[in-house]
Amino acid sequence: MSTKSSSTVSANIGSEQSVLFRRPLQLACGTVLEEHSLTFETYGQLNDAGTNAILICHALSGDHHAAGTNKDNVVGWWDSYIGPGKPIDTDVFFVVCPNNIGSCFGSTGPASPAPATGNVWGAEFPVLEVSDWVKSQTYLMEHLLIDCWAAIIGGSLGGMQAMYWAVNYPKKLKHAVVIASSLKLSAQNIAFNEVARRAIQSDPNFHQGNFIEHQTRPTQGLALARMIGHLTYLSDHALGRKFGRLVHSGDLDSAEKELVEFEVSSYLNYQGDKFARRFDANSYILITKMLDYFDLGANFENNIKDAFKQAACKFLVISFSSDWRFSPDCSKLIVDALIAADKDVSYLEIESDQGHDAFLLPNKRYEQGLQGYLKHIAKTLFKVAV
Amino acid sequence: MSTKSSSTVSANIGSEQSVLFRRPLQLACGTVLEEHSLTFETYGQLNDAGTNAILICHALSGDHHAAGTNKDNVVGWWDSYIGPGKPIDTDVFFVVCPNNIGSCFGSTGPASPAPATGNVWGAEFPVLEVSDWVKSQTYLMEHLLIDCWAAIIGGSLGGMQAMYWAVNYPKKLKHAVVIASSLKLSAQNIAFNEVARRAIQSDPNFHQGNFIEHQTRPTQGLALARMIGHLTYLSDHALGRKFGRLVHSGDLDSAEKELVEFEVSSYLNYQGDKFARRFDANSYILITKMLDYFDLGANFENNIKDAFKQAACKFLVISFSSDWRFSPDCSKLIVDALIAADKDVSYLEIESDQGHDAFLLPNKRYEQGLQGYLKHIAKTLFKVAV
Repeated sequence: MSTKSSSTVSANIGSEQSVLFRRPLQLACGTVLEEHSLTFETYGQLNDAGTNAILICHALSGDHHAAGTNKDNVVGWWDSYIGPGKPIDTDVFFVVCPNNIGSCFGSTGPASPAPATGNVWGAEFPVLEVSDWVKSQTYLMEHLLIDCWAAIIGGSLGGMQAMYWAVNYPKKLKHAVVIASSLKLSAQNIAFNEVARRAIQSDPNFHQGNFIEHQTRPTQGLALARMIGHLTYLSDHALGRKFGRLVHSGDLDSAEKELVEFEVSSYLNYQGDKFARRFDANSYILITKMLDYFDLGANFENNIKDAFKQAACKFLVISFSSDWRFSPDCSKLIVDALIAADKDVSYLEIESDQGHDAFLLPNKRYEQGLQGYLKHIAKTLFKVAV
Repeated sequence: MSTKSSSTVSANIGSEQSVLFRRPLQLACGTVLEEHSLTFETYGQLNDAGTNAILICHALSGDHHAAGTNKDNVVGWWDSYIGPGKPIDTDVFFVVCPNNIGSCFGSTGPASPAPATGNVWGAEFPVLEVSDWVKSQTYLMEHLLIDCWAAIIGGSLGGMQAMYWAVNYPKKLKHAVVIASSLKLSAQNIAFNEVARRAIQSDPNFHQGNFIEHQTRPTQGLALARMIGHLTYLSDHALGRKFGRLVHSGDLDSAEKELVEFEVSSYLNYQGDKFARRFDANSYILITKMLDYFDLGANFENNIKDAFKQAACKFLVISFSSDWRFSPDCSKLIVDALIAADKDVSYLEIESDQGHDAFLLPNKRYEQGLQGYLKHIAKTLFKVAV
């Protein structure tokens, strides 16, 4: 295939597009969205047979800008893994990454106008489930004239979408790559999400979710929510290696102890404030609830084996050793259920001290594993010599 | 010794006392407290030789009411472990538990009037370190005519006090019992504390710490801070066992998803709100900073072995298997340094799924280990036949 280098061609490989679906989307909660738009990026070319399409599913705070450098000079959130010559090779695959509904980067969400009133949805935006994201992605699939995905790939909440596709749309994908994900959240994970939501909801600028109407934003609460999340996506060891007990200013022996701040504190505060400027508080509440509600076995009397029996695709499951929010044990439960359901599954546990965030970060073995699996897909699905 | 049953006699075994020290307390930050008061409880009787006194050091949110049932019908926070016939046997030992300065249960703290102005200290209360708590405890020791503690016992921040005593007042204690503690906090621990402080500080009712002056309280921020803390003091497994994914009301299949709340969420919210009613927000900020600043080796060029060489007492170190904020690894660092310093140390790692909170909860092996160690103290220090 291509001999282009991965570093020089990765700029501007995708560009933002939007599509408005003027057909109803029946949501799991009972509400019908009469129309909705999806903003997305694509990278690479769909082959004539339409067999080389990959869907990338983003997680809680992700967006459609997964790869390349966009017009605002922002590098995509998974640029280390998507691009020419990279593990998800855009010289070989046609890669699609939508921003999902309920989020806040162009697709229909709480900050969009509600068609019925013309006012911003705000707190009135309907509750969503992973099934709604997937159903909306089927609309995009049709729009792009894709009949079957070569692979659906996602980390964390993205992995939940990949599993949901596999179980509920078995003819629509050949491979599901489920990274740092879980069949359902633990009580601890739900609790962290609850604290984050309360941080937002108790910000006086939240106004029960109608903050845009009040021309304000609950940035303090949202920053706090992000700090809690961010902190739990990192491992103790990674934080220790990065910051230790370094102080940001002042000195522990100085008389002005009030001014002393540890670097880890200033880092977290910075991350929280940065996030609060770009994310919508209602979206954060909505999407953390999607995580809480997800339960792949719920419609199968909690029998995950029965759920996976519906699937027809092959699976690659990946976990990271220091991820304590979506631990290797969570991935092993997925693998065990797939084996029990007699499915074809490969499992890769990656040594990393980066915690849950590891699924977004460069890591040689992770890259090699993903690359090997995807080369195999290309070879078997459309006979590309790679 | 006593044949009293532990259950019938544990009521009202101590009663609250206060002492005002009209002598200056030079704090580590440079400020001098011209006077300060300590509220404390004692249980049991000091023997004639004064050799059976035990100091109990409380942690972040603790107080002086460690054992028995007080006038408000509240059972002490360590009542499972302190009382007649219990591991810290009040028929054998004279047990002293002060509320420390900077806290908010009677001793001088941010909610007390500042002598200079007569107004509440609020945000002006000086920054404290563990060394200040210990120094103030030496005043109490003199007041109670105790020359040397048979043992100083504390969990978490309490264990830091016990270690500080051992290194800096070597002649003043025979044994240090250091439970679920650490030589210093990790970056992750500091980060959790930072998020909790920011939750308080971003509550509009905080008023830069002068909320009493404004006749209000930052209860939302303080509740959030406690929720974060509480959640991290529990293990994933304990939360899962207690709550799983049980929903509090409604049903995940109902159309009213907004009303669905997981039990773990309502539990955490309840804990946060309850705490916010009883604790002072400035005290929370102050004491979490004490935790962050504590670094036993700091005055010994970070050589813990050299620090512990100053000690003359014996040590019992205890950790809990599922404690991820003060993990067994933290305790092992203490033990290793004590061994390197050629000190007499016993170490007990207790199997528990209760996380950091385990140090406060009933646990047979923990009780037996503590009881055995304390019986040995009684036998060797003052020849009590137990």
